[in-house]
Amino acid sequence: MPVGLEGLEGRARTVKLMQPGRSALPTGMPWPMSAEIPRSISPQHPEVRLGGPGPEEESPMSLLDAIHSPADLKDLDPEKLPAYCGEVREFLLDSVQRTGGHLGSNLGTVELTTALHYVYDFRRDRVVWDVSHQAYTHKLVTGRKKGFEKLRQTEGMCGFTNPEESPYDLFHTGHAGTSISLALGLALGTAHEPDPPHSVAVIGDASIGAGVAFEAINHAGGLGQKLLVVLNDNEWSISQSVGAMARYFSRIRSARLIQRAQQEIQSLINAIPVIGPRVDRTLDQIGEVVRHALVPGHVFEELGVTYVGPIDGHDVRQLVDNFKRVKELDGVVLLHLITQKGKGHPDALEHPERVHGVKGSQPAPPPKGSGREDGKLPPADAAKKSGPSFTACFADSLVGLAERDLRIHAITAAMPSGTGLDAFGDRFPSRFHDTGITEQHALAMSAGLAKAGARPVTAIYSTFLQRGYDQVFQEISLQNLPVLLCLDRAGVVGQDGPTHNGVFDIAYLRTLPNFVLCSPRDGSDMTRMLKFALNHDGPVAIRFPRGASPGAESIHADERRAMKAGTAETLCEGERLVIWAYGDMVKIALGAADELRNIGVEIGVVDARFAKPVDEELLARHCNGYRQILTLEDHQKAGGFGSALLEAANRLPGNGARLRLLGIPDRFVDHMSTREEQLAELGLDVEGVVRSVRSTLASSRL
Amino acid sequence: MPVGLEGLEGRARTVKLMQPGRSALPTGMPWPMSAEIPRSISPQHPEVRLGGPGPEEESPMSLLDAIHSPADLKDLDPEKLPAYCGEVREFLLDSVQRTGGHLGSNLGTVELTTALHYVYDFRRDRVVWDVSHQAYTHKLVTGRKKGFEKLRQTEGMCGFTNPEESPYDLFHTGHAGTSISLALGLALGTAHEPDPPHSVAVIGDASIGAGVAFEAINHAGGLGQKLLVVLNDNEWSISQSVGAMARYFSRIRSARLIQRAQQEIQSLINAIPVIGPRVDRTLDQIGEVVRHALVPGHVFEELGVTYVGPIDGHDVRQLVDNFKRVKELDGVVLLHLITQKGKGHPDALEHPERVHGVKGSQPAPPPKGSGREDGKLPPADAAKKSGPSFTACFADSLVGLAERDLRIHAITAAMPSGTGLDAFGDRFPSRFHDTGITEQHALAMSAGLAKAGARPVTAIYSTFLQRGYDQVFQEISLQNLPVLLCLDRAGVVGQDGPTHNGVFDIAYLRTLPNFVLCSPRDGSDMTRMLKFALNHDGPVAIRFPRGASPGAESIHADERRAMKAGTAETLCEGERLVIWAYGDMVKIALGAADELRNIGVEIGVVDARFAKPVDEELLARHCNGYRQILTLEDHQKAGGFGSALLEAANRLPGNGARLRLLGIPDRFVDHMSTREEQLAELGLDVEGVVRSVRSTLASSRL
Repeated sequence: MPVGLEGLEGRARTVKLMQPGRSALPTGMPWPMSAEIPRSISPQHPEVRLGGPGPEEESPMSLLDAIHSPADLKDLDPEKLPAYCGEVREFLLDSVQRTGGHLGSNLGTVELTTALHYVYDFRRDRVVWDVSHQAYTHKLVTGRKKGFEKLRQTEGMCGFTNPEESPYDLFHTGHAGTSISLALGLALGTAHEPDPPHSVAVIGDASIGAGVAFEAINHAGGLGQKLLVVLNDNEWSISQSVGAMARYFSRIRSARLIQRAQQEIQSLINAIPVIGPRVDRTLDQIGEVVRHALVPGHVFEELGVTYVGPIDGHDVRQLVDNFKRVKELDGVVLLHLITQKGKGHPDALEHPERVHGVKGSQPAPPPKGSGREDGKLPPADAAKKSGPSFTACFADSLVGLAERDLRIHAITAAMPSGTGLDAFGDRFPSRFHDTGITEQHALAMSAGLAKAGARPVTAIYSTFLQRGYDQVFQEISLQNLPVLLCLDRAGVVGQDGPTHNGVFDIAYLRTLPNFVLCSPRDGSDMTRMLKFALNHDGPVAIRFPRGASPGAESIHADERRAMKAGTAETLCEGERLVIWAYGDMVKIALGAADELRNIGVEIGVVDARFAKPVDEELLARHCNGYRQILTLEDHQKAGGFGSALLEAANRLPGNGARLRLLGIPDRFVDHMSTREEQLAELGLDVEGVVRSVRSTLASSRL
Repeated sequence: MPVGLEGLEGRARTVKLMQPGRSALPTGMPWPMSAEIPRSISPQHPEVRLGGPGPEEESPMSLLDAIHSPADLKDLDPEKLPAYCGEVREFLLDSVQRTGGHLGSNLGTVELTTALHYVYDFRRDRVVWDVSHQAYTHKLVTGRKKGFEKLRQTEGMCGFTNPEESPYDLFHTGHAGTSISLALGLALGTAHEPDPPHSVAVIGDASIGAGVAFEAINHAGGLGQKLLVVLNDNEWSISQSVGAMARYFSRIRSARLIQRAQQEIQSLINAIPVIGPRVDRTLDQIGEVVRHALVPGHVFEELGVTYVGPIDGHDVRQLVDNFKRVKELDGVVLLHLITQKGKGHPDALEHPERVHGVKGSQPAPPPKGSGREDGKLPPADAAKKSGPSFTACFADSLVGLAERDLRIHAITAAMPSGTGLDAFGDRFPSRFHDTGITEQHALAMSAGLAKAGARPVTAIYSTFLQRGYDQVFQEISLQNLPVLLCLDRAGVVGQDGPTHNGVFDIAYLRTLPNFVLCSPRDGSDMTRMLKFALNHDGPVAIRFPRGASPGAESIHADERRAMKAGTAETLCEGERLVIWAYGDMVKIALGAADELRNIGVEIGVVDARFAKPVDEELLARHCNGYRQILTLEDHQKAGGFGSALLEAANRLPGNGARLRLLGIPDRFVDHMSTREEQLAELGLDVEGVVRSVRSTLASSRL
């Protein structure tokens, strides 16, 4: 995606950094807040513009058009920075509402990004964006305005930072909390240089609650390595922040009263008469202690971090001043900025969660038999063959089951809406637990719940389950506890890209003893699988993808059997070849069987239902009765469902049917497109499977 | 291991709990420290006794012999608790030094465990031991004294808590930091009960630095759920604690000066004349603020946790009083105990790290061709065919390479000695990073180092790499960064049991794109592999087991080739069957080939070297040239090395050799024995492989 990038060859022209002096500022002292949050700089947006350029578009965006690189920005008169930020905000409001994208978080980081680029020189200094869905202004400043035309679209610009897009993007991230570790590594890797570059991590208030962020602060604070952590505190993560740390930030934010009291106390202490030598001796200590107590952020101070703030994150001039000052400080500095998610968007104050991610208004290619977002019905024309989303099927079924089974608890790690569990939370608040962005803790806590006799249902996106893999091992699998993992967004997910694809879970889970792995092919089986899992005396993981399920009645719904571990379901028999498909891929296999029938080729289709244990009995029959077995999964081929079948078939005596694995090859799927397009690109759509069947039949004839 | 256990049927006899009153104590106030740490209660041990009972043994251990259950302990007069603790300490010193085990940490928890059982009723209340290698006193109190005769030995008692051993052991854990999550889950799972049981987590000062512990405190503090966290602070984790949190604890420990100053300040403030209404208004605030600043542990207070301490963790009477008081408090309470690792052991003060884990003095079965502990040469008779440990080979080679390559940094997560990197740290302190028990951060930081141009070598036990799986995915594999993971303790590890077996890494790593996986068969190949990996432009994971490597010159050392990704080495050719072995299993395959040659059966042996990519060219030749291929690995069969070969062979055209996978079946290896015994039990020793070869040849003849 080369859209006018500056290469690293710019390094040769790097301006000499100011000699970092020893800390001129007393560490640990709060810097003044601006008197009041300035009114919005950008023009008013009385209503969200959903179409093309509106009448306001006539005002020329002179600064935005003139700035193509950080160097251009640095040339700007500081007086003009607010105007530039206003133009950026207007551009984002307009552009992202057309294309879709993470609008809210990006409206919150306009000024901090501008000020960062104004003060630091990221041709040589380094900035790491945590989660990196808040880097749109960074993309604008670094010459990628044109990329916004196809933001998060096929062949378009990535919604996250991406080293393949720009040398200013150091990492492609999407999971929270690792920016401080990355920035510390960058700093330690250049610490030997005579004039090492600055390392900056920008992290949100929810991400900083992730254990890895704490680990990094704890280590960096202990080392005293020079490092800037910009805390972008908008009080909203994806849903509302949970946990004590969030409440602590909230107290800091409201600490102005204490700040005012500070001056009074200081003069008070100064005014105390020296009563005697004993008091005299402790006076210094008192001053130190009182000063310390009044500094907001002393939790961080205790962890060896110089806390600066809180500062208005939308006052770009003040931000520039502050960045210039912290740039000179040694050790780890945490700069606490108060920002407003969705700043400038009319819904931002009342409903910030609505502004988090917006769907574009541009006409999109019609979805192939499935909706595009969670819990939403697909457009009417697709609805004929599509049911509600898998997420909605899961959430609705669980609420129904929990009405009758009081043991059921639901656990989410900061994804109540994405997992559909918010309805459960409304219905059963005492049995609903949102732990924040803390998958490790959520999983271990689930094990504790199970040990206490509850039936925890822990809904986590497949890709985020990786964050708690060791807890899945030690706390769940090794203890053989009945924790039910519901892995949403399994398989390729479309525009969120490779960080969000859930395509490793079968491999890393099936190697763990005690686990049962299954996947429903539609909403009807979702309910059956939940029932099965809640009655199974051990850990179960159910995986299902983003998007719509096939209509509940569409596939053999009338002749279903209850679930039993390790039993597959034969949907149709064929002549020489049978497809064993897993989960959502069953509908693809059935579609391929239909198409092939039209040209006179009869193939069998099996809904495998379980990836562990596999149905060895049926597999043995098919190894004898068919010449070819195709396995079909929305997961890496290495170690996945097909690999499990291959292992099982290999244990059978004699030479039976040959297996061919269809799935994701050994690379990352980083194509910016919809889930359906990604599956097609991988040959995992109906057409691709038809092709594979025909080529397999052709070669087996030889 | 049923050694006189009390069953949960004891629940019916549960004494009624005291009605939990509202907090009678002001939260956040420190409780008095005892004036001084009491002198050791147990008899002096002028030298460590390594043999059987010494002359001191004549004094009767009356209390220890009389107490077989927590109920017995509760009947004890509180005056006798110190004497009981003294007997426990003496018993542990004597017994563990004979059998081997985690002596240091268990000598530190004698009094806290005794007091916990004295105050709480764990027939109904719940205690979770973090890492759980400090639970020997708990095992004694709960009727398992006899088990110490075979602690950590074949058919003997587990060194960790283990639900199969006792209903008082709730979880079998060995990885750090999850106890608070587990205890919170236990509490939430019973929160609906009218009189819910108490939940207690006991966690060390190093474990509390793990991200998952922070996540749990953050969540629990936000919830305000009743929960007791006992912080067992001995200033030593396995090596010295690192990080700012450790320094913070150290400041708390030395905060007595400030505590004394507190009284003076309080009277000072009381003595301030009311100067005017303005000052008057702030006076209350001042008092609050000053009081707050002087409370040790206010980091925890800010996180919604009631901090109590620090308290002498060896004064059992004071501990009983404190547990009684915190039992009545609501919300999350952190009780900070200062203990001394190895308390009572003559080396404890000067060299606590020596007391962490001791090897037994009992005669052990002679090791089969390998040493039993890291970095140590095996006994002389075994040395003929054994080289130095794989750990030592790794550490020595790396120091040699780092002399010439200044880009090499070495990273460990609290295992400088276990990974052998301490020598690297002594030699290159600025390129050595011990992050503490924080695998997630260590791995993400390594990615940052790599991005900065360094060559990070991150040495982590295979099982602990699970803790950072998501960072391995996002920060390393997805970015395709040249981070070298060195996975020590891969395979079964012997007495540490299933929590420490590293038997999943091939499966969870090979599904990730970009990774190269390899394993050396001896020290000579270790050096070659390190060289290869440090020149490879992407992530590499080298796995190797605990224990001695085969002597460097013992196996074909003279005709080695340099490593090239995906190239195996044929060590000998055979007639109808060839073994493809991985890493340390090559020596087993060669041993089996030798034995079979003696009875006239010639088999081939391949050192696969790489599990990813596999040598597809050689595999294709062997699929044509042999009738049977046996794969041999010290890893789960599901998704492991053999599975990777099976996938590769399945991609070849035609029907070639049949594969048979030898490895670990789909269960946990929880047999308490040495690594060699575990391998034998799994059929992965020379005799077992010979058996498998013969049965395979016999069946293929049919």
